[in-house]
Amino acid sequence: MSMSLLMRTSARRAVLAATRARVLPQTVRMTTRIAPVARSFTTAPVRFNQQRDAVSEILKAELRLETESLADAGEAETPALFSEFLEKYGFEVVATPGKNDAHIFKKTEDGETVSVFFDVAQVANLPYDDAMAEEVANAKSEEEEDFDSLADNFANVNVVVSKDVDGSSVSFDLLMNLQEGSFYVDSVTPFASKDAALNESAEAELSRELSYHGPPFSNLDEELQETLEIYLSSRGINAELSSFISSYSEFKENNEYIQWLESMKKFFN
Amino acid sequence: MSMSLLMRTSARRAVLAATRARVLPQTVRMTTRIAPVARSFTTAPVRFNQQRDAVSEILKAELRLETESLADAGEAETPALFSEFLEKYGFEVVATPGKNDAHIFKKTEDGETVSVFFDVAQVANLPYDDAMAEEVANAKSEEEEDFDSLADNFANVNVVVSKDVDGSSVSFDLLMNLQEGSFYVDSVTPFASKDAALNESAEAELSRELSYHGPPFSNLDEELQETLEIYLSSRGINAELSSFISSYSEFKENNEYIQWLESMKKFFN
Amino acid sequence: MSMSLLMRTSARRAVLAATRARVLPQTVRMTTRIAPVARSFTTAPVRFNQQRDAVSEILKAELRLETESLADAGEAETPALFSEFLEKYGFEVVATPGKNDAHIFKKTEDGETVSVFFDVAQVANLPYDDAMAEEVANAKSEEEEDFDSLADNFANVNVVVSKDVDGSSVSFDLLMNLQEGSFYVDSVTPFASKDAALNESAEAELSRELSYHGPPFSNLDEELQETLEIYLSSRGINAELSSFISSYSEFKENNEYIQWLESMKKFFN
Repeated sequence: MSMSLLMRTSARRAVLAATRARVLPQTVRMTTRIAPVARSFTTAPVRFNQQRDAVSEILKAELRLETESLADAGEAETPALFSEFLEKYGFEVVATPGKNDAHIFKKTEDGETVSVFFDVAQVANLPYDDAMAEEVANAKSEEEEDFDSLADNFANVNVVVSKDVDGSSVSFDLLMNLQEGSFYVDSVTPFASKDAALNESAEAELSRELSYHGPPFSNLDEELQETLEIYLSSRGINAELSSFISSYSEFKENNEYIQWLESMKKFFN
Repeated sequence: MSMSLLMRTSARRAVLAATRARVLPQTVRMTTRIAPVARSFTTAPVRFNQQRDAVSEILKAELRLETESLADAGEAETPALFSEFLEKYGFEVVATPGKNDAHIFKKTEDGETVSVFFDVAQVANLPYDDAMAEEVANAKSEEEEDFDSLADNFANVNVVVSKDVDGSSVSFDLLMNLQEGSFYVDSVTPFASKDAALNESAEAELSRELSYHGPPFSNLDEELQETLEIYLSSRGINAELSSFISSYSEFKENNEYIQWLESMKKFFN
Repeated sequence: MSMSLLMRTSARRAVLAATRARVLPQTVRMTTRIAPVARSFTTAPVRFNQQRDAVSEILKAELRLETESLADAGEAETPALFSEFLEKYGFEVVATPGKNDAHIFKKTEDGETVSVFFDVAQVANLPYDDAMAEEVANAKSEEEEDFDSLADNFANVNVVVSKDVDGSSVSFDLLMNLQEGSFYVDSVTPFASKDAALNESAEAELSRELSYHGPPFSNLDEELQETLEIYLSSRGINAELSSFISSYSEFKENNEYIQWLESMKKFFN
């Protein structure tokens, strides 16, 4: 029903939200779905330091808990689990501390650089757990278009392939289905230079957003769709990448959470 | 059903709208709900000045009406109603003429600056009237998840607390429920400097938007949620602030409307 | 149901998409509606050049097809169909190669410049075909608020009128209904200068987005609504413009598609 309101997005695109639009973020949404647990907070005049100290104490305890469990698992560094995938396909991780978007890239035999971007907070908060996904699906079986659970299983992945010789690039906006380990192409946009395709300034983001993105992928000639999908597959966009994106998102999201606890602790100290 | 499409927003965040997305703004939406009153206009060739003059005359009459009613109510200046709240809590208003966002701030005993931002057009257009809200709720009682009226009762409020000593800041994205006079935390994001937290350039907005915002608030440790809520409450985020936001939004929105009439009159003169 | 989530947009406004929001673009949406035809692609290790060449061959064939059909129809240049409308109303086309937004403008007898902006990809992908629109409508007759088909028939059109003498401008955000050939006003925003109204930098877009846009148009005094509609009509915002926007969008979208094929062919060569 609300399908006509869907917005096109990419893991790397500028982010926005209408001031006029009435929107409800995640918190309320979850409480709506599950139970009205969110406490609304009320006035309680107290000494200032006391409130700050209370937050500080909890943050310290949380941080101790998290770093201990990390040390136990030996997960402070990029786990061996990832090295295997990265080496097999020749991908390297570009560190993006403090950001939601993860970035990996590789060089191909054909003189191309393949960059992959994905939003670790989006992926980590997907209902990747099979049991949970099934439950959600059953709960709504009466709906004909099971849109929500459909949406909940997809994440945005942006793949940019650049030719090293002249920098010309093609950007693929993909949807990744975690359960299936599969990717669906949404749109394909060519750019004259690496800068036009990859520059992350607000001006560049806006310029890309306003540019023509080709026809809806499903309107393209069938053969063109197929050969582009096979091309992407030959560049490493496959089920193993999907698994990597899933595991790496949980890993990076957890690291971001620990850094978040550190910054919070510093502020409330 | 459309819950998975909800976008995270804040009163201060960059605003956007997808060119590809098929969207319908407020006008059509209201006519859809209430009745198809919106006239579509048709061609009627006329002398140019005549059309301009017709608009001009109405604008003058509207402006006279508005300024007279203001003079009667003695409301040209910030009403006494607001001074009481502002003095009690030590908040000051930062003038933001021509903008939707209002901004108030205060210094705390603990060496902090607390800034509060809210969108007066969003708040002023909420169904704050109890009778109307009830009507809306009844009209849809058959729906299990009464999402619309839920969304319609919330507004986005952004609170940024900065430590004066080093500028380190924490930004709280809140949802305010007008009927309840309560706030719900959506996300909490620490920043290293006041500039990183508050700079309003497009680059800064984009950078904040792409940064990690912490886990969904409802996923945090229960005690951490509670102490953060009590902390906010101790910094003046309470039912009286909610009342102030509601009244001040109507006040500023009306002033913006009068300025809008002035600018329109000047153009059509 | 999802009406409270509608976002205000204009054909010229900055575009965005929330990284956190779970969104599903057009591809998935169409497959959901029609049939699950979208192939998810699977791993198939092959020689690199082979995959690139396969795409290249199809692109060449597609391009040959498109340019031949253009040559047959003599449509490489702006068709005569458009000249008639442009001359009658004094509009000129501003070329915007590679962009979704089209831009036409004209000078009026009253010392004004009227600029019209519309998103050709949005318009070209509307269900402008009557039969198809009817089918969609019937398929959902059971829904009380036939929101989707309503949304699907509207496109965003932005009209900016500037006074040549001092540059002061008024921007009208309109919704165009293709079937009816009519326009509905969403909001009206005055600006002090042409630059404030028309500058396309990210900073200017953000600044406009955060500015006060007047009350919802349907809340304005009835007479003011009517005179503004008649004013717009006298400046050429009429059924013939609607027809032009529809035809020109198909024309420009097709040209963009051919350029897209060219750029793709160059990349995959």
